[in-house]
Amino acid sequence: MTRVPSTSLELAAIATLVGGTLRGDGTRRIAGVAPLDRASADDLAFVASSRYLAAMASTGAGALLVSPDLAEASGGPADRVIVTRPHEAILRVLGALTPPATPSFRGIHPAASVSPEASVAPDACVEAFAVVEAGAQVGSGAWVGPGCHLGPRSSVGAETRLVSHVTLYADCAIGARGLIHAGTRIGSDGFGFVSDAAGHHKIPHVGRVVVGDDVEFGANCTIDRGSIDDTVIGDGTKLDNLVHIGHNVRVGRRCLMAAGVVIAGSARLEDDVRVAGQAAIGGHLTVGRGATITAKAGVLKDVPAGATWSGFPARPHREELRRQGAAAKLPAVLRRLDGGGPSEGSDA
Amino acid sequence: MTRVPSTSLELAAIATLVGGTLRGDGTRRIAGVAPLDRASADDLAFVASSRYLAAMASTGAGALLVSPDLAEASGGPADRVIVTRPHEAILRVLGALTPPATPSFRGIHPAASVSPEASVAPDACVEAFAVVEAGAQVGSGAWVGPGCHLGPRSSVGAETRLVSHVTLYADCAIGARGLIHAGTRIGSDGFGFVSDAAGHHKIPHVGRVVVGDDVEFGANCTIDRGSIDDTVIGDGTKLDNLVHIGHNVRVGRRCLMAAGVVIAGSARLEDDVRVAGQAAIGGHLTVGRGATITAKAGVLKDVPAGATWSGFPARPHREELRRQGAAAKLPAVLRRLDGGGPSEGSDA
Amino acid sequence: MTRVPSTSLELAAIATLVGGTLRGDGTRRIAGVAPLDRASADDLAFVASSRYLAAMASTGAGALLVSPDLAEASGGPADRVIVTRPHEAILRVLGALTPPATPSFRGIHPAASVSPEASVAPDACVEAFAVVEAGAQVGSGAWVGPGCHLGPRSSVGAETRLVSHVTLYADCAIGARGLIHAGTRIGSDGFGFVSDAAGHHKIPHVGRVVVGDDVEFGANCTIDRGSIDDTVIGDGTKLDNLVHIGHNVRVGRRCLMAAGVVIAGSARLEDDVRVAGQAAIGGHLTVGRGATITAKAGVLKDVPAGATWSGFPARPHREELRRQGAAAKLPAVLRRLDGGGPSEGSDA
Repeated sequence: MTRVPSTSLELAAIATLVGGTLRGDGTRRIAGVAPLDRASADDLAFVASSRYLAAMASTGAGALLVSPDLAEASGGPADRVIVTRPHEAILRVLGALTPPATPSFRGIHPAASVSPEASVAPDACVEAFAVVEAGAQVGSGAWVGPGCHLGPRSSVGAETRLVSHVTLYADCAIGARGLIHAGTRIGSDGFGFVSDAAGHHKIPHVGRVVVGDDVEFGANCTIDRGSIDDTVIGDGTKLDNLVHIGHNVRVGRRCLMAAGVVIAGSARLEDDVRVAGQAAIGGHLTVGRGATITAKAGVLKDVPAGATWSGFPARPHREELRRQGAAAKLPAVLRRLDGGGPSEGSDA
Repeated sequence: MTRVPSTSLELAAIATLVGGTLRGDGTRRIAGVAPLDRASADDLAFVASSRYLAAMASTGAGALLVSPDLAEASGGPADRVIVTRPHEAILRVLGALTPPATPSFRGIHPAASVSPEASVAPDACVEAFAVVEAGAQVGSGAWVGPGCHLGPRSSVGAETRLVSHVTLYADCAIGARGLIHAGTRIGSDGFGFVSDAAGHHKIPHVGRVVVGDDVEFGANCTIDRGSIDDTVIGDGTKLDNLVHIGHNVRVGRRCLMAAGVVIAGSARLEDDVRVAGQAAIGGHLTVGRGATITAKAGVLKDVPAGATWSGFPARPHREELRRQGAAAKLPAVLRRLDGGGPSEGSDA
Repeated sequence: MTRVPSTSLELAAIATLVGGTLRGDGTRRIAGVAPLDRASADDLAFVASSRYLAAMASTGAGALLVSPDLAEASGGPADRVIVTRPHEAILRVLGALTPPATPSFRGIHPAASVSPEASVAPDACVEAFAVVEAGAQVGSGAWVGPGCHLGPRSSVGAETRLVSHVTLYADCAIGARGLIHAGTRIGSDGFGFVSDAAGHHKIPHVGRVVVGDDVEFGANCTIDRGSIDDTVIGDGTKLDNLVHIGHNVRVGRRCLMAAGVVIAGSARLEDDVRVAGQAAIGGHLTVGRGATITAKAGVLKDVPAGATWSGFPARPHREELRRQGAAAKLPAVLRRLDGGGPSEGSDA
């Protein structure tokens, strides 16, 4: 079930790669990784629990990664690598078998629109219907996918890939070795207005978005440019899909944000912050280094370094759990106090 | 107020269609459906409540669908169809009057970029600035809108429409009779990394997205491909706008997800599950057949088949209502216990 | 640090503009606005608090806006304008120094695809890879960015800009002086189905989206068309990124919606409503004129004019704060009642 072009490895090399012990034929060639029930003869599968012994017995896989307790389990392929954590080891095998995607050509597609005042490295790839405006720079080995739009004076670092339909607004910059998924917008105006009786008057946004190296953004994210200062995303930070970053936000290095997260304007996330799905950070707040914000939390105060906060308004996770535990007991307590239950659903 | 090209029907045929009783001129031709206050002589409007009698008296509609209690109401058009639920019946009329949208041409637009190694059915439509890569397949009658991007070896089933700027990544497949709204991304990498002191290392995503038949996705959704296994969306499932589906998720048949829903990686939704707006399902959980998750809920445990769960962490809806009812009484109870009210807003 | 092309102003003119008092050289030319630590000699910076005196002493800025209490503060540029609220005044200066972005050409790019049956004003700009279908109208001075898609009979008002990859579905209309950021979709079908044992049957959506004048939409928003009636967005309303507006919704004038907001179908927002980030309004509800909905709130009932509501289900903000205050005391109260604490985290 190898679905993307891949290389192949001998099973002995795989044993070395994962620090495991080889059983059986070390010269067997493995070209892919697959689940037990869908693997074929040139695939490696893994088994980490005796719950899967039946699937193991009937798998079509050529070889297995198995945990030590299953090393001698009967049924299924005899060619095996025994390793402590098969589910982690398989990812290392997968990485070795999966060369990074590469463009099918180098240079500028004849159906791209590239300004004569733009600078595109000769070994970069600019695909069909991409627009590269005056003063934009595309680095060595960079890959600008179909329909991407690079505004005036924007820049894409070496070996960075914009998958398709990515918009990089004027003056915004992405570092090296980045991966920006389809439909993500970098450099839209922040949500800033001065309001009076006549309505809302736009605050000009002359700051940029500056994205570091080794960054990955999921699909359909939105990163607003700064009003006066810049919006900054640190090296090694990874965003899932549909994440919003407001104007003037500063995100440190190696942060992780899951799908649907909203970071309001001028917030600051220090290095190694993790924000789970649909959580939000309020404007102008600081989340300290290494802090974790759990799913759906809403942060309305600064969060100390290393802390785990949850709930809305977010507070230390243990305190939130204590409140939830208390809330669970409340209906029974009220019944006891009142000599009768609260009227069900009276509030909703 | 017929805004899109449409056919027309005689009022007698409409009465038959909705199972109603005709009053007046059955040969009157109806070409559209409109609200009372905006309808013109070839439009049908509906009245289901005596609150709208004034609007009914002054409408420009040519004919009415009315509920039995309003059959004899004076004022407004004399040509009427009497039917039990006019607001449902009008939708059936609308469906009959509205032919599905069709492309303005068949074949490949000269400004599309289609690989010679792609396969496009002769009666399909590929619009301007679409990109169809090597090995991609476009089925009979399919309609690939402006700027869509079909990656290598992807496939679009018969009669399926991708409206515009849709990205279908490499190896992903959509079934027949689907409708994918503008800007939806199918097959972006899941959010999976192995982290160590040096940072977050990407887990390759070699699984696909496999979408069944009769599926509708709203605008700007994101559906991640699987890491090793596939992400699967069952037949007849419908997503609203801005929905996120994580890697390896399995969604059954006929599920409904409203706007802003997030389904985390490796979750499993059985058939006929309904998820309301901004709700989320945690990773690796199962939501049983026919279950309903209410708006903004956050599911952190498996949900049994047929259950309705709400709140965060989500729990059975009746239990959540009981807690909300108790919480509503809490300030008064505390005042009684303490002989004084809690300090207002002390926590926010 | 002037990053976008800009004009320049003498410091005396700036003093007049902001109603401030000039100190020093009124003929000094200012070309940009920058933070203290990044400003250069032709930039204006501002200081509103003595916390920034050290940064003020070392700034490279040519001149300062300072609050009255800092007028005589030593260190930093001698050329100053003294003004009551420097942080607001600087935005006025920024607006004066930042001419609105303009297209680099007028007319239709040779790589755009414009129907001969479309109408494009001679002084409008239609950029590369845009698609303008039959019957569409592009007004005077309008700017249709790269890859935008204007469906049949859609219209874009005078001086309105669609940044890039915007989809305007058939029959939808945007007024004058609007700004629609990249990837926003206007006119996708609403989420409406009639369900029976065989599955979910689509309700045709023949209504339009009608957007007023002076409207701004952020990036990757989705605005659904009406089913029978129209979806309407009033003059002067501003949406942040990733906002969803359901079918048949009516939004008044000068409303503000922050990132991640979801407005369900057929809701009605009167004029001057403000909805904070990730909040949601349920279907068919009315939010009265000038009401405010706070972050992450979920509105399940009509909201009176002028009210501030928060929480989920949303209620008057003071009541929500009272409940939160009570919830904060609950664990201690239960300990007192029970002679023991609730088991921590028992519920989560």
